[in-house]
Amino acid sequence: MGNTFGTLFGISTWGESHGGGVGVVIDGCPPRIPLNESMIQKDLDRRRPGQSKIVTPRQEADRCEILSGVFQGKTLGTPISIWVKNQDQRPEAYTEMQEMYRPSHADYTYQAKFGIRNWEGGGRSSARETIGRVAAAAVAKQLFRKVLPKLEVVAYVRQVHALVAKVEPSAVSATEVESNIVRWPDAKDAERVIRLIQRVRSKGDSVGGVVECVLRGVPAGLGEPVFDRLEADLAKAMLSLPASKGFELGSGFAGTRMLGSEHNDAFIMKGGRVRTVTNRSGGVQGGISNGEDIVFRVAFKPVATIAQAQSTVSVSGKKAELKARGRHDPCVLPRAVPMVEAMAHLVLVDHYLRHKAQNG
Amino acid sequence: MGNTFGTLFGISTWGESHGGGVGVVIDGCPPRIPLNESMIQKDLDRRRPGQSKIVTPRQEADRCEILSGVFQGKTLGTPISIWVKNQDQRPEAYTEMQEMYRPSHADYTYQAKFGIRNWEGGGRSSARETIGRVAAAAVAKQLFRKVLPKLEVVAYVRQVHALVAKVEPSAVSATEVESNIVRWPDAKDAERVIRLIQRVRSKGDSVGGVVECVLRGVPAGLGEPVFDRLEADLAKAMLSLPASKGFELGSGFAGTRMLGSEHNDAFIMKGGRVRTVTNRSGGVQGGISNGEDIVFRVAFKPVATIAQAQSTVSVSGKKAELKARGRHDPCVLPRAVPMVEAMAHLVLVDHYLRHKAQNG
Amino acid sequence: MGNTFGTLFGISTWGESHGGGVGVVIDGCPPRIPLNESMIQKDLDRRRPGQSKIVTPRQEADRCEILSGVFQGKTLGTPISIWVKNQDQRPEAYTEMQEMYRPSHADYTYQAKFGIRNWEGGGRSSARETIGRVAAAAVAKQLFRKVLPKLEVVAYVRQVHALVAKVEPSAVSATEVESNIVRWPDAKDAERVIRLIQRVRSKGDSVGGVVECVLRGVPAGLGEPVFDRLEADLAKAMLSLPASKGFELGSGFAGTRMLGSEHNDAFIMKGGRVRTVTNRSGGVQGGISNGEDIVFRVAFKPVATIAQAQSTVSVSGKKAELKARGRHDPCVLPRAVPMVEAMAHLVLVDHYLRHKAQNG
Amino acid sequence: MGNTFGTLFGISTWGESHGGGVGVVIDGCPPRIPLNESMIQKDLDRRRPGQSKIVTPRQEADRCEILSGVFQGKTLGTPISIWVKNQDQRPEAYTEMQEMYRPSHADYTYQAKFGIRNWEGGGRSSARETIGRVAAAAVAKQLFRKVLPKLEVVAYVRQVHALVAKVEPSAVSATEVESNIVRWPDAKDAERVIRLIQRVRSKGDSVGGVVECVLRGVPAGLGEPVFDRLEADLAKAMLSLPASKGFELGSGFAGTRMLGSEHNDAFIMKGGRVRTVTNRSGGVQGGISNGEDIVFRVAFKPVATIAQAQSTVSVSGKKAELKARGRHDPCVLPRAVPMVEAMAHLVLVDHYLRHKAQNG
Repeated sequence: MGNTFGTLFGISTWGESHGGGVGVVIDGCPPRIPLNESMIQKDLDRRRPGQSKIVTPRQEADRCEILSGVFQGKTLGTPISIWVKNQDQRPEAYTEMQEMYRPSHADYTYQAKFGIRNWEGGGRSSARETIGRVAAAAVAKQLFRKVLPKLEVVAYVRQVHALVAKVEPSAVSATEVESNIVRWPDAKDAERVIRLIQRVRSKGDSVGGVVECVLRGVPAGLGEPVFDRLEADLAKAMLSLPASKGFELGSGFAGTRMLGSEHNDAFIMKGGRVRTVTNRSGGVQGGISNGEDIVFRVAFKPVATIAQAQSTVSVSGKKAELKARGRHDPCVLPRAVPMVEAMAHLVLVDHYLRHKAQNG
Repeated sequence: MGNTFGTLFGISTWGESHGGGVGVVIDGCPPRIPLNESMIQKDLDRRRPGQSKIVTPRQEADRCEILSGVFQGKTLGTPISIWVKNQDQRPEAYTEMQEMYRPSHADYTYQAKFGIRNWEGGGRSSARETIGRVAAAAVAKQLFRKVLPKLEVVAYVRQVHALVAKVEPSAVSATEVESNIVRWPDAKDAERVIRLIQRVRSKGDSVGGVVECVLRGVPAGLGEPVFDRLEADLAKAMLSLPASKGFELGSGFAGTRMLGSEHNDAFIMKGGRVRTVTNRSGGVQGGISNGEDIVFRVAFKPVATIAQAQSTVSVSGKKAELKARGRHDPCVLPRAVPMVEAMAHLVLVDHYLRHKAQNG
Repeated sequence: MGNTFGTLFGISTWGESHGGGVGVVIDGCPPRIPLNESMIQKDLDRRRPGQSKIVTPRQEADRCEILSGVFQGKTLGTPISIWVKNQDQRPEAYTEMQEMYRPSHADYTYQAKFGIRNWEGGGRSSARETIGRVAAAAVAKQLFRKVLPKLEVVAYVRQVHALVAKVEPSAVSATEVESNIVRWPDAKDAERVIRLIQRVRSKGDSVGGVVECVLRGVPAGLGEPVFDRLEADLAKAMLSLPASKGFELGSGFAGTRMLGSEHNDAFIMKGGRVRTVTNRSGGVQGGISNGEDIVFRVAFKPVATIAQAQSTVSVSGKKAELKARGRHDPCVLPRAVPMVEAMAHLVLVDHYLRHKAQNG
Repeated sequence: MGNTFGTLFGISTWGESHGGGVGVVIDGCPPRIPLNESMIQKDLDRRRPGQSKIVTPRQEADRCEILSGVFQGKTLGTPISIWVKNQDQRPEAYTEMQEMYRPSHADYTYQAKFGIRNWEGGGRSSARETIGRVAAAAVAKQLFRKVLPKLEVVAYVRQVHALVAKVEPSAVSATEVESNIVRWPDAKDAERVIRLIQRVRSKGDSVGGVVECVLRGVPAGLGEPVFDRLEADLAKAMLSLPASKGFELGSGFAGTRMLGSEHNDAFIMKGGRVRTVTNRSGGVQGGISNGEDIVFRVAFKPVATIAQAQSTVSVSGKKAELKARGRHDPCVLPRAVPMVEAMAHLVLVDHYLRHKAQNG
């Protein structure tokens, strides 16, 4: 059941890069939430290939179709099935993958686990799988619009290779992020990052970086002791994204170099409620949201598929050399932004419903 | 069900710092595994308070008792219930917590979530809760002794404040780690770290750091696409530990500054099987183990409870000042080592059984 | 998550009677199982409407399409998505349901629960939903063909209204059952049952009955103490079928009138293994299969939709009279047979994989 | 995880007949519910052995102790651990079970499944395991007292062997049921049943029967399409009880002999809400409660342990003869009543919380 996520707002994604398509079934969505395809499409468009000159040129419209669970524009409370047909498939671009394992990709491990793999386009390990997650999160967003109207989830590219955006998470605006194709929070500086990515691509190479995400308007009380801490579920959600290698909340790894007296967030009363003066906790204490901004970062490695020759082994155990064809992102970060936002929504919606059940 | 972990080797931990005790119920353990209390006690002793001069002086023997699931020295396949009685309880040391919220602790968020909290000793948010996890992992260890005898899980303190151990994960030995009270992998350097911790404590302050963990002998094939990737479940497991703030696998955050051509792990044939020349992947590719060492790091913040005066608010919303009494660790790292190992075992055992079910 | 079933062979069904279609996502199927659409279609044809003169004349080919999880004719170990498009939709036949609640149907309770309902064709409560189950079970069958080749699951109509088939479960053959349109195990007697059903239909009425199911070749050891007993999961599975009202295993309700000395199944050695002389246990003891035939019965009420005028209330709380139009089964039993078999397969496959994980 | 039940109000029971005791961990109970040991003890006393002359004379006080999750008389929202120590253990009474399989008991199947079994007192398959369920249900009761104060769950012995109580479920009172040791709903007739049970015991034999249960005051809307129908979860819950062989809701098996026109429950408006004139549906339609009394029956086989000589086989596969010693119930029905009520509460509380999460 590794393709299923969530206790109450449960989603099951399905589909491979090449084949009938990709999709998701959402089981447990509350009823009477306004929903139509264009609400979902908007988010799918933010993650689709071919959206700008710095991502893969694979041309996929990624048109979604709602097959069930919606009646006269509202959710029924029954499973919502959403389907995106695969269109721009080129299995012939992957014939070499049939014969050899791409370095730092999932070809070998899928083969080791299952004794079989769909070698066309990475199969299930393709980032195409995240379409189902983004679609499901778009549904969660519609729910939050009704029940937590002040919730705001903003992710952005904080770092690409050695370039780091100089911003304060609390001040980043979604509009500014979306105003440039890197999704850089400091738009006037974006051109520099775009040039870096293009330079790397021109050499047939790739770069990684860090996505930062801030959740504003999350009420105190979400998250559970002890295994399903909010940050634990966020960490799992983020590490389940392709190419992610790390997660940190609030002060994160840097906070390990502080003293307790420097690190602690003093409480004060403000606006009639308990607040913290600083936010090194990143909005979560003891696994439960404290009402401050939730801030976390996700590390993404440089894309494994590069246009340079690499040494590897063939499926029959022979030394081999591989030079990827196919159409790939030189930098996954811009398209990772909507994926990170999607997973954040999915974690939040599940904890929102769980909290309501036990303590609402 | 936030206190329950695992799909097939399911554990439910229970208990508060003050009260009848803490414990765990393990549901799904395979039968006929040799098990007795001393096997569990050994690991509990590594995490118990009072074990050295750099941890909390709270004196708890943490004696475990197996109440069910074992017959004539072997597991029955039915639930194993393990109980550790609380002994050295001093509720009077916590009376101030009844009245105010400790900064960067879970007092306020538990109150916000549940509208009630056990203010004695942190209640459920106390690190005492991890006793159940360590006990459950000790059972998993016995299973692995039988089915994966080459498995070796070694965690150690990689960093305390600004001090970083200069070691290669693949070369660290469990014996060397256990030879010093910090669990520093480079034993001859441990004294320096001990002095740092003592210096910090003498000022009524605390420090954080990083635990690194290496899993050797994990066969290729464990982990699942797409949500239950091995690293995703490890990340969740580690972020569920008290005071943890970050997780990274293999190259982690540092890897985001590399190019794809530098980062990729080339495949080669070695000893008749597919290996990688480097291990930036950290032993997991596409969510599934590739047979190399699994290497990850966990960031722990400086302990929130310090002996200095801090400003906070009272439960009635008044400005207040708090100076912790109680008996606390100046540095959680040495005792976090067995906790990290425990969670690693729990993730592995569940994925081991799941893999066996689907692909065995 | 009420639309999801199974711990390891997890299925999520979706879809309403009217809308984009119905389908299922299977998460956890073992890899390398031969699978194509015709293997699934065979079972869908047994449950489809319009298959004979004694079922609903609704004409649906129920053509299935596999959208994912299969590559070159074999399962990949990744989610299998199966879709059946709705075709013969006549929402106009249901316009009255928009205004009133059909007696003994789910219109009122769906409205009470969700505050909204798809009134076209019963929406999610339509028996059309079982297509996903039958398709998923067809996949499980292919797995069993490989791992439990001697497994035989045979269901049949044991009773219609007051007519009871005189057969011994152990002797019923699938071929004889399929040789007549009622799926009566004593084929030479089937005509009498067909006439009864036709007579009832001609009066605009409906009848209920009992489906009996026998599972042969189940090895000893499947099922778990204490909540997931094999019979408990079978009971849940059967009571989750539309129109079912009861379940009994082995001696069932009749066994309550026996003495212990009459009821107990004495053990004997036979063919080198432990057997029972009688089988009042119905093949399960202490929740676990004992290697004998598993025999159970499921009660189905008379179909709620009848062509006679019935008094009811409107959605606005007014007294109303309803006379169903639409196209309905006078007797659900013949089409319930493949549904019962499907659910039996789904329970077995999950317990098979769970047993393998823990004890294999 | 077969010893775990419930999605949101999750319980894990543990323990064997002989050993450290039996108990339960409840994960997910809402906070601030008044709870102490005497509230639980009351229900444990109703199921304990030795309570009357027609049950087993095994003397167990079954004193419960709450080990966690309660603070100052109220639930904390964290796991509640409840423990009952085993006291009156006589392993020597079971030495023969070490050597042979008791007919229609779980000895053989546990051995077949696990390759090991605790032969003392039936181990995990002992009805002693239900202590954990009854204790957990007592906690659920306290919650319902607060959130559904009109809820009334009344079970009673409807039938023993051939004797059937002549009562109308809607009219049975808990007080009358508890007024006699058989828990017969028609108290003036109870003596006749007591005599039957005593007569059967004196012959070293046992009898079975039927427990009926009525749930009053359940609001419309509980239960889920499609697998987690309320009746499906009730069926599973009841079939998970030791010695149960069947379940039926409302008209049940008898309803299969009615015509649709006789069986349907017409809707009417009454007291401002939608009601049904009759209640053949048994309070559930389409898997969801409709606000009428929920009525179901559970078949219990005659107790397998009898004091007569029976033929069986030894663990080494030899023909053997067994005559039970030990102390056993001649009729499980009186003590099954609180077990049935307990499972009904556990199903209700889980669906209550799930409904609140999605639709509340």
